[in-house]
Amino acid sequence: MESLNRFGAKILLVAANPLSSQPEIVAFLSSLGIEVRARRDETASEYEKEIELAAASQPDLIIDDGAELHVAYASNISGRNSRAKRTCFGGTDETTSGTIRLRALDRRRLLTYPVIAVNEAPTKHIFDNKYGTGQSTIDGLIRSTGLLLAGKVVVVVGFGWVGSGVAARAKGMGSRVIVTEVNPIRALEAHLEGFEVMRMIDAACIGEVFLTCTGQTGVITSSDIAKMRDGAILANVGHFEREIDVRSLFRVADRVSEVRAGIAEFEIKSQSGRSRKSIFLLNQGRVVNLASAEGHPPEIMQLSFANQLLSLHYLASRKHKSKKGVAKRVELVMPVPREIDEMVSRFALKAFGLKIDSLRKDQMKYSDSYH
Amino acid sequence: MESLNRFGAKILLVAANPLSSQPEIVAFLSSLGIEVRARRDETASEYEKEIELAAASQPDLIIDDGAELHVAYASNISGRNSRAKRTCFGGTDETTSGTIRLRALDRRRLLTYPVIAVNEAPTKHIFDNKYGTGQSTIDGLIRSTGLLLAGKVVVVVGFGWVGSGVAARAKGMGSRVIVTEVNPIRALEAHLEGFEVMRMIDAACIGEVFLTCTGQTGVITSSDIAKMRDGAILANVGHFEREIDVRSLFRVADRVSEVRAGIAEFEIKSQSGRSRKSIFLLNQGRVVNLASAEGHPPEIMQLSFANQLLSLHYLASRKHKSKKGVAKRVELVMPVPREIDEMVSRFALKAFGLKIDSLRKDQMKYSDSYH
Amino acid sequence: MESLNRFGAKILLVAANPLSSQPEIVAFLSSLGIEVRARRDETASEYEKEIELAAASQPDLIIDDGAELHVAYASNISGRNSRAKRTCFGGTDETTSGTIRLRALDRRRLLTYPVIAVNEAPTKHIFDNKYGTGQSTIDGLIRSTGLLLAGKVVVVVGFGWVGSGVAARAKGMGSRVIVTEVNPIRALEAHLEGFEVMRMIDAACIGEVFLTCTGQTGVITSSDIAKMRDGAILANVGHFEREIDVRSLFRVADRVSEVRAGIAEFEIKSQSGRSRKSIFLLNQGRVVNLASAEGHPPEIMQLSFANQLLSLHYLASRKHKSKKGVAKRVELVMPVPREIDEMVSRFALKAFGLKIDSLRKDQMKYSDSYH
Amino acid sequence: MESLNRFGAKILLVAANPLSSQPEIVAFLSSLGIEVRARRDETASEYEKEIELAAASQPDLIIDDGAELHVAYASNISGRNSRAKRTCFGGTDETTSGTIRLRALDRRRLLTYPVIAVNEAPTKHIFDNKYGTGQSTIDGLIRSTGLLLAGKVVVVVGFGWVGSGVAARAKGMGSRVIVTEVNPIRALEAHLEGFEVMRMIDAACIGEVFLTCTGQTGVITSSDIAKMRDGAILANVGHFEREIDVRSLFRVADRVSEVRAGIAEFEIKSQSGRSRKSIFLLNQGRVVNLASAEGHPPEIMQLSFANQLLSLHYLASRKHKSKKGVAKRVELVMPVPREIDEMVSRFALKAFGLKIDSLRKDQMKYSDSYH
Repeated sequence: MESLNRFGAKILLVAANPLSSQPEIVAFLSSLGIEVRARRDETASEYEKEIELAAASQPDLIIDDGAELHVAYASNISGRNSRAKRTCFGGTDETTSGTIRLRALDRRRLLTYPVIAVNEAPTKHIFDNKYGTGQSTIDGLIRSTGLLLAGKVVVVVGFGWVGSGVAARAKGMGSRVIVTEVNPIRALEAHLEGFEVMRMIDAACIGEVFLTCTGQTGVITSSDIAKMRDGAILANVGHFEREIDVRSLFRVADRVSEVRAGIAEFEIKSQSGRSRKSIFLLNQGRVVNLASAEGHPPEIMQLSFANQLLSLHYLASRKHKSKKGVAKRVELVMPVPREIDEMVSRFALKAFGLKIDSLRKDQMKYSDSYH
Repeated sequence: MESLNRFGAKILLVAANPLSSQPEIVAFLSSLGIEVRARRDETASEYEKEIELAAASQPDLIIDDGAELHVAYASNISGRNSRAKRTCFGGTDETTSGTIRLRALDRRRLLTYPVIAVNEAPTKHIFDNKYGTGQSTIDGLIRSTGLLLAGKVVVVVGFGWVGSGVAARAKGMGSRVIVTEVNPIRALEAHLEGFEVMRMIDAACIGEVFLTCTGQTGVITSSDIAKMRDGAILANVGHFEREIDVRSLFRVADRVSEVRAGIAEFEIKSQSGRSRKSIFLLNQGRVVNLASAEGHPPEIMQLSFANQLLSLHYLASRKHKSKKGVAKRVELVMPVPREIDEMVSRFALKAFGLKIDSLRKDQMKYSDSYH
Repeated sequence: MESLNRFGAKILLVAANPLSSQPEIVAFLSSLGIEVRARRDETASEYEKEIELAAASQPDLIIDDGAELHVAYASNISGRNSRAKRTCFGGTDETTSGTIRLRALDRRRLLTYPVIAVNEAPTKHIFDNKYGTGQSTIDGLIRSTGLLLAGKVVVVVGFGWVGSGVAARAKGMGSRVIVTEVNPIRALEAHLEGFEVMRMIDAACIGEVFLTCTGQTGVITSSDIAKMRDGAILANVGHFEREIDVRSLFRVADRVSEVRAGIAEFEIKSQSGRSRKSIFLLNQGRVVNLASAEGHPPEIMQLSFANQLLSLHYLASRKHKSKKGVAKRVELVMPVPREIDEMVSRFALKAFGLKIDSLRKDQMKYSDSYH
Repeated sequence: MESLNRFGAKILLVAANPLSSQPEIVAFLSSLGIEVRARRDETASEYEKEIELAAASQPDLIIDDGAELHVAYASNISGRNSRAKRTCFGGTDETTSGTIRLRALDRRRLLTYPVIAVNEAPTKHIFDNKYGTGQSTIDGLIRSTGLLLAGKVVVVVGFGWVGSGVAARAKGMGSRVIVTEVNPIRALEAHLEGFEVMRMIDAACIGEVFLTCTGQTGVITSSDIAKMRDGAILANVGHFEREIDVRSLFRVADRVSEVRAGIAEFEIKSQSGRSRKSIFLLNQGRVVNLASAEGHPPEIMQLSFANQLLSLHYLASRKHKSKKGVAKRVELVMPVPREIDEMVSRFALKAFGLKIDSLRKDQMKYSDSYH
């Protein structure tokens, strides 16, 4: 990794909580001359200010988690009359939602450097999104509520890598799992995996715990909340506090109180005014596995960071190549090079003490033949 | 589908057993004027002769399963001095191994028409390869051997779509499942899914049932067989009889007998000559879910056939377009168009009686925004 | 086992299908001088005649499966004016329902000899009822219907040993499993195991496959059938054809036809007469794992038979002791002696190649101490 | 429950941690006039002193968890020259190990009052031991170590109610689970459930996490520890710190340090002196689900407490009856009366919002008939 230094690059890393809880990783990055900006328990406004400062600090490379810094940097240099210098020549991002935002930025020609979408590397999304978030969501849920998961009706909103991991672990803890989806292929997969698949409005009537895993906005709406049972628990595993319509919760509740650390009770009167129910929201709708628990297990973060760092290194090594003119418009958001992904997975197998087979020459030849 | 007829196309369908066991599908295809060639219980030589005749019959479109007919057709027209007319203008294939062979054919410029690799459609490989083969392999195994799967050590060779489905179902029946792989990313996934991952030579020593799911050649070799326990059972779920080295089984056995329909016992003396063991091979190493059971459940075959037929229709509708000259070399093996895949999955959801959500306009806009 | 012969006992064995499919076990029993009466594919009337003949043949010991022969023998000797000689001095039975019937017989003082309820031995009911029937039910269901179990709504009626095994395996094949129960403790257990628990009448509305596992009569009634969806499949895993109210199916159907071997379609008009639905019954409501498949795997039957034979041997060795007068009324239906159960389980562990720990002396002492 | 007061009983409740973390239950008991003695985070010597004081305080009824107070009370009144008054006329205990100790006390004629073994009620041991401890052990393990459970080799020592629950949940989190047992029937059950079964000494070589669930002493010994891999983690889920031989850990380690709250690292040199390894012990070998997490979920504790209180009430109502002379020696450790168990389970079903079926009259009659 030392070669990152050879370029004298000033790398800015803005990351959500998991990093900050793992000081040894921060120390390692700092030892490479990477400026790391990450704090646990920031308020929303501190977080925003921090992002703006980072964007304005003329970074050479950006590692990000949710594309917050990429977006701020783009705004900074693209604003009318902006005199900000275009210093950044490459970056990475490690989430599904970050990748979606970066593609949108690129479609509008606001992205000025290549970004490797680390999330799309199998060693990232399978392991981090599926197995990492799967476990840490269960952990966050039990820590904050203390409830027995066996027998509970758990509604998993979204069956992407995160949702499928959360659904599998909830099932593994004995819950009855319901899945809602907008993608018909994923819905079919959830169905054949043995989960109940239905529309959100139908799930709203029977769920006891709702876990949003979509990266979308407003996937639990006020009409869903109106249908919910007394005592329903809402938690977000996806992206920021947008997935659950928290504002409408505040609007319909006539009393809100914190009943246990990180658990807000919203007392809601029925329309007729004759009955009341309580809806519980975990961590103000912020990501439950980071807020209530300690984020991902270290085994998982190591895979993701290896991907991030090797990708940065790849970009840094190709700095000048990537500046060459290309006749045809090329997408700037790109996948992790396959050789990096394989390198990371072989490193992980070794760390787990596992040995696997290799293709023999006759097998490679067979793969390449048509007989 | 009637439009297939408008082209007056002569479509040849050569398929392995599952089709022939489902006469209503054959009848449907025939009603469209599609010539179907499929028989159950052919001998290997009858099968080969059948393929050759089909290849020589000047088909317009070819639906295939394993690329046998595509390869035969290509040989037919490309042979030196061949006078065979190039009639075929498109085709499909529905297996992993067929796709591999077609790509090899294309790399050698022997493929003369576009082929849609139906296997790569999620509605095909997730449902057919994973859930379909998962169930039918368990079915084939129980029917032919009658053994209790609970507690058995089952070695699944290969953890692609087929292998992961077979592993999940064996676990669901109470087996202890071991996975062998050559791909480090899949190996990691199997590990995190809770399966034991090891080299074949190590698995050989402890397995009781071996299921090959690779599409490769020689994945169970004579050295593996030498390590196996007395009573080990070998079955192939992948491609033809190449996965298990059946020839070497015959070579090392000093007695071979059929102990039950479809089960051959190979009695093998140890090198020292002092001990003996028996290895059981199911169906001569031919695909166990077709040979011992009845192939896939109809729900699954419907998805695969819908993909095949809609893909053929797509090719037929674009017949003249696809003939237009293209400056750049284009790969002739192509994926199922996304709109077909979605159409098939929505049709399947409806058939299963499932309703799912749709993205609202504000959500689509959110996906497209970078804020 | 040879000592059974020393008593010159004439043992009658009447057994349902599984035995008859395992000729080597019949041969072993015959070699001991045990007269085995078992045939596959008997008609109901042949079966009844066979039972009557056996009951009248002056057996010394009776091995039974469902208590049919015990009941027939008791009727034979207890009938007014009966001159039948009381020859039998002991017996066994291996089912839950047989045990229930024997206890009822004993309460009425109609049982004249001790019977060991083999079903109550853990090595019998855990392994045979749970794991054996679990697998063979899945096997029978797939063989007869060919349907994909993944995603199917499977209603398991009764959550005893049989029902919990069937529910676990259906879940393992990817089904969504609903449990109905009358016992509140078992219902709670099913709930915490992650299954949906509801009343039969509610399950009737949503189930696609119904599997009765109760040993009771009329657990699927005409009112349940009236609620069922078009295409619902009914199969019995419990006791005889009493569990599903087959008679009422015939009464409400205006057409009955056999659509595939062992599958009867009942076409039923709705009350308004405007819509129709089809209900499918497997094997006329007879036990699906015996009728459609081949009964239990041999590993399981060996455990059950070992229990049966060792229990018979135990009774034979105590023949004279058990005749001694006892002041107090003793229950004649008795559990398998613990030493037999342990012997069977250690034998099974050895057969499976498993080694386990033993208590050390200090641990035995600790178990016996109160400090 | 008010009737407990009618007897003016002074009930002493000594309980381990779970109670103390649930102040509302303590408050409820106090409101009934029950003196509750429970504190979190006592030292071992404070705990012992507390027990002695309680034993000497002339209780009328004793609720216990592990039989500590029952044993102390018995010592108090039975000691030679003891002038302690025999005040206690009944008690309960809610653990497996407590029941074992009480039986040992009774065999020595040192128990002077009836004790209801609450642990033997299905509503206690199935729900508390299996599902409650299953979840809270996973919770305690993740909280204290932060490790990813997916892919880990977890050795569960003992496959009783606790062990089977822990094994199921570890499997549900993606671990590879190995079971060790001394009871051949349970070992067979673990095997058929799909777990690997082996001797402790063999498991020691491959395990990464060891969870003791036996209620026995010394189930992980110094010879097992000698075989373990570098980095192995030991945690106790059973009874006190006796299960893991902690003393020998201290003896063989040449350095012990606390690496994270509740995790002690024992650095051990190999016999040759050439290599070193670290073994990690959680919470000094004290019960991990209480020490690292917050004990059982409240849904589970409610079932256990309902059983305890209803049993106490039962004893209090029969106070005078139980003092009547009985000719024959009767065992003083008795099961929870079946009607209490049913009442608790029906109450729990209602709390979970579940409705179940009831036997109809014709079904009750059928159960009682032999035809």
